Formats: sequence, C-alpha cells, structure tokens
Amino acid sequence: MNIIERLIAEKAGRDHVEVGEEVSCYADLVVAHDVTGPLAVERFYDIGTDRLFDPKKVAFVIDHNIPASSVQSRQQHKSVKEFAKKTGARLYDRSDGVIHQVIYEQGLYQKGQLVVGADSHTCTAGASGALSVAVGSTELAAVMALGTIDLEVPDTYLIQIDGELPQGVYAKDIILTILGKFGTNGFTDKAVIFGGGGITNLSIDEKMTISNMAIEMGAMIGYVDQGEEIGSVKESYTIKASELEPVAACPASPGNVKPISQVAGTEIDQVVIGSCTNGRFSDMEIAAKVLDGKRISENVDMIVIPASEKVLVEMEKREITETLRNAGAVITNPGCGPCYGAHQGLLAPGEVGLSTTNRNFPGRMGHPEAEIYLVSPRTAVESALTGKITLSKERLNE
Amino acid sequence: MNIIERLIAEKAGRDHVEVGEEVSCYADLVVAHDVTGPLAVERFYDIGTDRLFDPKKVAFVIDHNIPASSVQSRQQHKSVKEFAKKTGARLYDRSDGVIHQVIYEQGLYQKGQLVVGADSHTCTAGASGALSVAVGSTELAAVMALGTIDLEVPDTYLIQIDGELPQGVYAKDIILTILGKFGTNGFTDKAVIFGGGGITNLSIDEKMTISNMAIEMGAMIGYVDQGEEIGSVKESYTIKASELEPVAACPASPGNVKPISQVAGTEIDQVVIGSCTNGRFSDMEIAAKVLDGKRISENVDMIVIPASEKVLVEMEKREITETLRNAGAVITNPGCGPCYGAHQGLLAPGEVGLSTTNRNFPGRMGHPEAEIYLVSPRTAVESALTGKITLSKERLNE
Repeated sequence: MNIIERLIAEKAGRDHVEVGEEVSCYADLVVAHDVTGPLAVERFYDIGTDRLFDPKKVAFVIDHNIPASSVQSRQQHKSVKEFAKKTGARLYDRSDGVIHQVIYEQGLYQKGQLVVGADSHTCTAGASGALSVAVGSTELAAVMALGTIDLEVPDTYLIQIDGELPQGVYAKDIILTILGKFGTNGFTDKAVIFGGGGITNLSIDEKMTISNMAIEMGAMIGYVDQGEEIGSVKESYTIKASELEPVAACPASPGNVKPISQVAGTEIDQVVIGSCTNGRFSDMEIAAKVLDGKRISENVDMIVIPASEKVLVEMEKREITETLRNAGAVITNPGCGPCYGAHQGLLAPGEVGLSTTNRNFPGRMGHPEAEIYLVSPRTAVESALTGKITLSKERLNE
Repeated sequence: MNIIERLIAEKAGRDHVEVGEEVSCYADLVVAHDVTGPLAVERFYDIGTDRLFDPKKVAFVIDHNIPASSVQSRQQHKSVKEFAKKTGARLYDRSDGVIHQVIYEQGLYQKGQLVVGADSHTCTAGASGALSVAVGSTELAAVMALGTIDLEVPDTYLIQIDGELPQGVYAKDIILTILGKFGTNGFTDKAVIFGGGGITNLSIDEKMTISNMAIEMGAMIGYVDQGEEIGSVKESYTIKASELEPVAACPASPGNVKPISQVAGTEIDQVVIGSCTNGRFSDMEIAAKVLDGKRISENVDMIVIPASEKVLVEMEKREITETLRNAGAVITNPGCGPCYGAHQGLLAPGEVGLSTTNRNFPGRMGHPEAEIYLVSPRTAVESALTGKITLSKERLNE
C-alpha cells in the first residue's frame, strides 16, 4: 500500500485496502462554513437526530460572507451559530478568518487525520499531512451524525518538483503550472501527492497554497509528502523546478495557464490579495516588500483580505497594514472576501481582475463578463503598481 | 439678520435677505458619493455640458458600498471615478471613509462656506460653521454645472443646551433628546442653530454628532454656534444639560426617544459602532476604554466601522484595533458599513440591533422586521458586554 492507502486503511481500522474498494472510515474532524453549514444543519435534523458524533470534532467557521452582506447571509449565520451552541460544536464566528486557515491555526489539521469538509478547498489540509476530502452538505450531515464516511480508495498519483525554485517563482506558480499541465480534469476523484525537494522544502504556508488547489484538478485528495515512504503509485510525474516561471491562470479556467510573459501588458481594474490560497502572513510580507514606499496605479483598486485574524494581527504588528494602505490598498476584515463572489470587491462587466485566489470561472467574482487572472501575490502587486499584468525587471534580475 | 441670514446674504452677494425669499447663492463645495453620484453624473451630461463650474470645488467620495458588494455598486464606482478623472473633480475612492468625515479631514468644510451635498447628512458640516444643504442628484447636477443654488431663506430656530453635561451623557444623547422633544418633523425646511455652553464647549467630533442629525428633524440647515452674534431667531428653546440622561431612539424612528432606563434589559443580537454620526476616533476611544480586557457577550456580534482611514490609522497606532478585536469585535474597512443597509452587517427578521448610526427606519439595516435602537458608543459597548441594552453601574456612579 502507498501512503494514501495506508492512511485510509488506518482510518477504516483495516490491515489492507484495495484501490476501488469502498471502505467506511472514522472522521477525525468535520468542518463547514456559513454557506454549506445551514443546509447540513437542516439535513442533520432531517436524519432524526440532535446529537453530533463528537462535538469536539465538528467545527463551523463563518467566513464566506462576514459581516453579513444580505439578510439571507445573516440568516445563514444564525442557523450555524444556534446549531453550534445547541450541540456544542466548535464555532468561529468573529471574522476569525477563512475556514482552512482558522482550522489550521487552531492546530486541528493534523498529520494522519481524516478531515471531512463541506468546502471544495478542504484539500488545503493535505499540506499538514491530513487526508482531507470535500463533500456536499447532505453527506456532511450524515458524517456529523455517524462520525464515519464511506470512501472509495482512489488511484494515487505523484507529482514531483525536483530541484530548487528559481528566484521570483512562487508556490502559486508551481500549482498553476501543474494545473496547466494536467488540466482541470487531470485527476478527477484521484489522490495526488505533491513531492520532491521543490515542494518538501517549502514552508507550510507555501505547501497550503499547493494542496489548496488540488481540487481544481478534480482530485479527491491532495496530499503533500511528509517524508514517510510514499510507496507505489499509479503513475508519477516529475517537473524540474528550474524550468518553472511566473504564470497566470487566464480567463476563464484555473487550467488555462500561460507564462506571465505571454499576458504581460493586459490592463487590469482590480487586484485581490487573499483567500485560503494566498492570504497568509507570508503572502502579505511579499506584497508589502514590493509596495513599500510606492503607490499603486490610480486605475487599479487593490483589496487585501487577510486569511485570518491572526494574519491581520501580525500584519498590524509588523506595520504591513500601514505599508499596504499607504500604497493605496483597502484592507477588509478577515474572511473569504470577494473570492466566492458574495461581497467586498465584485467586478463589473468588461472589467479585468487579478487575484491570488483559486477560481476564475465566469461570474466567480462579480459579473460573468468580467475576466479574472489567477496569480501569485508577487505578480499581483507588481501589476497593481503599473495597472497592467507585469513581471518586473527587478524580478527578472533576481 | 441673524447668522444664518447673514451667511445666505453673503453667499448671494446681497446686503440683505428676507425669510421666505428665494436667492441664488454661490456654492463653495459640492459633494456626492457612490450612490447619489452616478445619477448626478448622468443628469449633468443631460444638461448638455461637460465642464464643472470649478473642479476643485466638486468632490466625490466612494463610501456607501466599498469594496463593492454587488455588480451594480461596482458600476456606480466606475461611473463616479471615470467622471472625476475626466472633469478633474476631487476623488476619494480608496475606502478613505464616510463622505462627511473625509471632507472634514481634508479641511474642505470651512466656517462661512456654503456646502451642497447629495447626501442627507450633509448638515454634518454645520459643526464647522458651514452652511450646508442636502439636495437630490438632479439638483446637484445643476449646481455642479452652474456653481450656484437657489435657496429659500428659512426661519431660524435656536436650541440651547445650558450648563455642563452630566458624566456618562454624550453628544449622541443630546441630539437624540432634542429629536425626542421636537420629533422628526420638528423643523422641516427650517434652519436650526445648536448653541449654549452644553454644545459650544464640546469637541468638534461631538459637535459633528449633533449637527449630523439635524436632518432627522427635517431641518434644511443644521448649524453649531461658532461664537459670533446669533441675532434674532423665530424661536429659541433651552434645555438644561443637568436634566439630560442616556437615551435611545427606539424602533422605528429617530424621534422615538426613551431613557435607557426604560428600555434596559432588551436583548440584542448585534452592535454597530461607526458612521458619520459616531465613527470618529473619540468614539472609538470611548468604546475601547469600556471594552479593555473584557469580552462581549457570545450572543452579540459587534461590528466596528471607522468613519475614515485616518480614524483607523489612529486606532491602530493607539492599539484600539487590538483592544476591540480582543473583545470580540469585527473591524471593517472605513466607510458607511451597514448604516445604509447595503452590506457589512445586515440584520435578519426578528433581530435587534443597537447602533451608533443615525437612522432606524424599518429595513434601514437589513430586514424590515429587524429592530434598531440608536444610541451613543458608550451605551453600545456597555450593552455589547451584557447582550442587553445596558446602563452600567459604573456609569451611574461616575
């Protein structure tokens, strides 16, 4: 068995599992947010129970629409909050941040755990060595009641980045390059392990950027090599780190990836830095370093959404909030911001947005006729300064 | 002539004006925001011109819905921004803050000036000794083109607060008490001068809280005594400061004012601190002093919206952001926040909100079946701690 199979077998209380076999696994953690949570709560009651399998292992984070930008979203908050108080589930409802970042910071994403989340990007936890799967609200309700989930053991693929990253190339460029290579259906319902020195030497923040977007390739599981023996996989691919360059996922798919050099010069209206992909402190540090003492183009709005309150507090302490504001950025409260298309920075028809988030489907961040390019924080801020998609000379010479 | 008439005469280039007479006055400043601005821009072009009477005297502030919470609001931003860039008008589009606070901080609200604003609360400028009138977008368009506005000289009333305010009573309590006394139609189309030691000894922040709500009594002009001779008025009223106490404007009118003692104990779901009424640094200081080291009720969400970026920067510097966050508050970017009912903290049916803002009509801040109480920042935070409308023992004993 490979590492994914070993983890699944362990969670199933079995000595051995086979690819294709469906096994019932114990969940270590079940998470949902203010959009998926209310429906899960409804279905949970429909099941006819009012007890969670283990309240300490169920967590709700209000992140998609906080503070409430509509009466409906406020009602969603109420549903989740009342449920958490009634059942004793963990609740993070104070603009604590994006679900995956908050749960990580709370130390709840642990190596070897099985995390079940009603959010596509639950795979973020794979950076911590957790087996993490995304489900719909109905399935989540069942897991909340039972504490188990049936998983079909997937084929496992290994993607290795060998060597050291060139200067000016970031984790986001790695995962976008992988996405460009394998496409948005490249690993549908499969497990993907990200390995090789180009990944294992990265910081946990950077690893989270990578595992976060496994779902964009359709993967059931995204997992970052934790140093154990991987074992035999269906297939493995190797990319030389030295061949990587800054890239963008162009409209209107995360798989439509091109080198920045090919799209440089495209005029932009808005830049967003944030999300469970790239809203961490290290991302903010990169942004502040580039923007320090400078002012973004007057044709661009720049919105910065810290991925968590902890990130924001650290930004304040290190005067990064000050640097970004002096550069002309608007800093919102922690949360998902405009990533999900709910509020705090939607685009008008014909506008072009540059974003460090994870999806650029039509209408994802406002009007369906707005275009979104997904990039690293470095590319985002260099472009904010010029008002065009930019790869600076400084970066080329690093 | 009294002070209001003298100012109108001066702006009309006349030696004398009579009450009831319509006179054409020169505007010193014309302001609009992202909701009223786009229609004013449209009407301006309808007039058949593309030149402002004086670009330096026209200012747009994007405050009502920033960052954009809908495609429509983003389109509104675009309209205003493009117009300002084309005509050379002043533009504050970086989440600089609420229009009246931003314009004040820019030193553009000056004693003796005539300010014409497409926002109800333009009367805020009366605290600085400006003559300030609110108009609709169509009239604003005409003023933007001509630089003049026809004003009917109003009757002037004087409201005096004599003596020193008791401890624990704030500017918001003064203006709400006045509103309760005279009602929301008390001075429709009239000029109101706020005077007496109970007002003239206040800080400019506090004076702005008072003049801000003159419009809630229907007043055409709200003006704070600047120390010149007032002259003869239609009628004057005197309220003894010593008789004032903390009050709330109860649902669903700013004129439905009751002592806090009468509504104490009412359970609340949300507390909002912000707006052009009470979102200034001094308001935040009051909030932080009460909340320092404490945690708000888990049944309450507290949203803090600095009235301007300057306010936010000062809050950060003095660690008030930290104090408020540690108490459980969410701090948003500067702007109008939920006051206008657009985003960042809307209420669900049946919920009760406590707010330092200026209006509590049904649906003003979310669902029409939500109830809003208007209070001072002090009452807001004392209530956030207990989850009920509260007048603390500490305050009673001050």
